[in-house]
Amino acid sequence: MSVGAREGLERLSFHQLTAPAWPIAELARGCAEAGVRGVGLFRRNVEADGLDQTERAIRDAGLRVTSYGPVGFFASGVDADGATRDLEDNIRCLDQAAALGAEVVVAVAGPLAGRSADLGAARARIASGLAELLPHAVSRGLRIALEPLHPMLCPERSTVCTLRDALDLVETLPAALVGVSVDVYAVWWDPELPAQLVRAGERVLLAQLSDWPLAGPADRVLGRTMMGEGCIDIAAFVVRLVAAGYRGPFEVEILDRDLAALPGREILRRVIDSYLRIQMPSPTVA
Amino acid sequence: MSVGAREGLERLSFHQLTAPAWPIAELARGCAEAGVRGVGLFRRNVEADGLDQTERAIRDAGLRVTSYGPVGFFASGVDADGATRDLEDNIRCLDQAAALGAEVVVAVAGPLAGRSADLGAARARIASGLAELLPHAVSRGLRIALEPLHPMLCPERSTVCTLRDALDLVETLPAALVGVSVDVYAVWWDPELPAQLVRAGERVLLAQLSDWPLAGPADRVLGRTMMGEGCIDIAAFVVRLVAAGYRGPFEVEILDRDLAALPGREILRRVIDSYLRIQMPSPTVA
Repeated sequence: MSVGAREGLERLSFHQLTAPAWPIAELARGCAEAGVRGVGLFRRNVEADGLDQTERAIRDAGLRVTSYGPVGFFASGVDADGATRDLEDNIRCLDQAAALGAEVVVAVAGPLAGRSADLGAARARIASGLAELLPHAVSRGLRIALEPLHPMLCPERSTVCTLRDALDLVETLPAALVGVSVDVYAVWWDPELPAQLVRAGERVLLAQLSDWPLAGPADRVLGRTMMGEGCIDIAAFVVRLVAAGYRGPFEVEILDRDLAALPGREILRRVIDSYLRIQMPSPTVA
Repeated sequence: MSVGAREGLERLSFHQLTAPAWPIAELARGCAEAGVRGVGLFRRNVEADGLDQTERAIRDAGLRVTSYGPVGFFASGVDADGATRDLEDNIRCLDQAAALGAEVVVAVAGPLAGRSADLGAARARIASGLAELLPHAVSRGLRIALEPLHPMLCPERSTVCTLRDALDLVETLPAALVGVSVDVYAVWWDPELPAQLVRAGERVLLAQLSDWPLAGPADRVLGRTMMGEGCIDIAAFVVRLVAAGYRGPFEVEILDRDLAALPGREILRRVIDSYLRIQMPSPTVA
């Protein structure tokens, strides 16, 4: 068995935010050599590296781009850094996703501006923002996956915090075009998760993995840990997803300051080891 | 109008964790002199001050004890400090609550021990733990209010994180004896909150107020802020509660390291000012 065809890695995708300082050409080569077939890409990093250079690195390595983004920021039109993210900007992000051949574009609701959080009004803006963006995705052959973030990031980054809520928002739109991205780190605590995964069915366009530290995250954003080092029952999540019909990739996205400080190859090695220790119900890619 | 009958404070209760270093005798006197009629008491602080001394201070000041606790820790039988909290220990807490004349005993699910968080098993233990404790509360004339904590504290302090979940757990038990405590800080982000407050009706035995900082909490436990300084629409919460039939007190419980460092009287002054700025739909106590 060659390194590039390592068994059990068929559905693994490596999100670049897990190794944010790893130059994209090295990251792509490292993934391919380790037998990882897909990567998740983050807009800000891609723009810093250059879209063309990123596209070339991914193509040369023969990788899939399992996700790109985020689009969205519908709630108040600004991103977490306060930059404006209007429809034109979201369309530019779709153009980038199309250029990269991304399979799914992730959408986040975005922060709420202003002092008082009117969640009902935010919700209406998110629904209309999604509907407005959708034709532009369709014309580029892209599917959008709305991702609930953990409630501790409400209203800083998202007012959509549960799978139920994300499904409520997308289910009036065509299932072939719009679904959800389920990051287990964001939703694992929810007793409704098993039932909502069943409800979601084919709406799940992307699954992301990381773990919740036993002592709680030290940082609201950068406080995740490696699968198996926290308290989430990752295998149970994977089994439920697969039972509900999910056939897509498992993107590992571990936002962790300490991990990010390690060399890229070491991060990838740890991700692969951790991933292979999960008892996966089926290694088959759709 | 005397200081002790200040208008608009009829339903305000001051939780002692808002000023954790304020000696109980001074706290009780300070509240009474400011026209605050109720206090919420925390078991660890009461045990440090002495139960008898606390009871005397509260009685001398003519205050209500709107809540005492927590009991619970059903999920793994230990509290946040790792101390054992079994049935006998919970009964001791009920005895203390009875001695203090507490109107409501707050229950929290407690942390999960062990590496993997089996939420289903925890749930079963919480349900049976509540049912087991209930007769001991009834025989002491006490009502128990299960309080969901924010999901960022799962599984560190509680696996019950939404009002829906808390209601699911208590609604098989008699409404006259068991209900919920709704701390707006824990549940404000939940798009289901309005509907679940209606569902809760008379099950809401206690309401707690504080605010979510605009930039997010700096600490998972001690990161709250004063009402009006964060992004929660407190007035809308109060209106919904009252519309759903709530007639009890509004306990202000602001766990904040910076606030706690101020003198007790200054903390109380700020709490009263902040509370009076909320547009309360009705100042009447039940």
